[in-house]
Amino acid sequence: MKKEDIIKQINIKKTFLCVGLDTDIEKIPTFLLDYEDPIFEFNKRIIDATQNYCISYKLNLAFYESQGIKGWESLAKTVNYIPKDIFKIADAKRGDIGNTSKMYAKAIFEHFSFDAITVSPYMGSDSISPFLEYSNKWVIILGLTSNKGADDFQLIKDNKGKHLFENVIETSQRWGTQENIMYVVGATKTEYLEKIRNIIPDNFLLIPGVGKQGGNLEDVFKYGANKDCGLIVNSSRDIIYASNDQTFAEEAKKKAKEISSSMALLME
Amino acid sequence: MKKEDIIKQINIKKTFLCVGLDTDIEKIPTFLLDYEDPIFEFNKRIIDATQNYCISYKLNLAFYESQGIKGWESLAKTVNYIPKDIFKIADAKRGDIGNTSKMYAKAIFEHFSFDAITVSPYMGSDSISPFLEYSNKWVIILGLTSNKGADDFQLIKDNKGKHLFENVIETSQRWGTQENIMYVVGATKTEYLEKIRNIIPDNFLLIPGVGKQGGNLEDVFKYGANKDCGLIVNSSRDIIYASNDQTFAEEAKKKAKEISSSMALLME
Repeated sequence: MKKEDIIKQINIKKTFLCVGLDTDIEKIPTFLLDYEDPIFEFNKRIIDATQNYCISYKLNLAFYESQGIKGWESLAKTVNYIPKDIFKIADAKRGDIGNTSKMYAKAIFEHFSFDAITVSPYMGSDSISPFLEYSNKWVIILGLTSNKGADDFQLIKDNKGKHLFENVIETSQRWGTQENIMYVVGATKTEYLEKIRNIIPDNFLLIPGVGKQGGNLEDVFKYGANKDCGLIVNSSRDIIYASNDQTFAEEAKKKAKEISSSMALLME
Repeated sequence: MKKEDIIKQINIKKTFLCVGLDTDIEKIPTFLLDYEDPIFEFNKRIIDATQNYCISYKLNLAFYESQGIKGWESLAKTVNYIPKDIFKIADAKRGDIGNTSKMYAKAIFEHFSFDAITVSPYMGSDSISPFLEYSNKWVIILGLTSNKGADDFQLIKDNKGKHLFENVIETSQRWGTQENIMYVVGATKTEYLEKIRNIIPDNFLLIPGVGKQGGNLEDVFKYGANKDCGLIVNSSRDIIYASNDQTFAEEAKKKAKEISSSMALLME
């Protein structure tokens, strides 16, 4: 998917919401366990219910891998079920030496037809460049993450006073363009968003951490939005587990609609 | 597997070799493609041929994921085929927020019965601690990797002159013990091995990069070995692709035996 297509979807739907399909077999309504593939059945109904209120789905691969081969089948079916005009993110946090990242790229972009993959920058340029060789595919590099442990290393300052996450964002700019690189910036770190926008005014940001993790949508928009909107804000648990009974899809729809309405107001 | 069991195996077999099963369907002998599961057939024969000359197998998950669901089947069969007294490493470079790393741990330690997983430290403590909750299982944290891109961030110095990889090794010491944490240190970075051994005299190190990537075994042993040996040195392509015809397993055996003999000499 091209950048202009993402922007177009944001403008048509008046939302920049990404629904996170962190589908946990232990958290889905129990009546679904009677189906042959409960995880896919859950995802299918969530997608049917929320697709008009989001521009992206993010599948957290860990939740599928934890179910072994059956989980990969649910993953494949889910990716194929998502409508073509919706941006499909593999939240995988991969990154390895060149010949290995090439294999991950093959898995995510060829075997599954994801549009984007989240990657960890620790191993540097050659761990990420194999993903950038695909046209109209994206890497989303971890910049400043939403979790507590982010402080352990991402906030370390170098001898010029620059944080590690700033070095990551600055250096990785040389590896690709605003047409194939996005960055993960946690919604809990809005105090750094302005600084990040100064380094990368044009790249899209994937923002997790709104909702359960404590991030605030208004602040994210105030400090993070650019001329194209430039934001994809993820919400997972708040939406997909809004209810735990027969009404779960309906409740997920309500929640997605509610968040999207707040987004539409901010975009006015 | 306990640390004492790994040390015991090293002393019995007089080797600290890990054979890397980076099995690429495009590189295995073509006659294997007639089998139902060529990748497993290849691995099975490599394991039969090399198990007396190594103390560990490392499965690079990217190579299996690139084959989709079929690849996960080959992975499962391979892990189950490896003898119980051999240390099984999932080379996965995972790491995500707590609830997600918990799912990866479930995948690697419960669904598959790996003894260890490689993890990326970028997201800090809570991205790694879920793996440390399992008894007799290991995390192998990326310290200083063997690839060119390692220089991009791992060698950044903080305002006290300490490299990022030193900060990673020092800080992560607080998360676990020498009974459940190892570190990846590339064989191409022997100039830093002495420094690393000063920080962590007792932890095991997983050393990739000997052979094709240019690392030198003698230097690795000189600067990296400790009283327990403390090293697991990986070789992948040099062994498993030693030959590309009917003799591949025999040639892999020769190569593994040759490397192990060099290791035995160093250990004398």
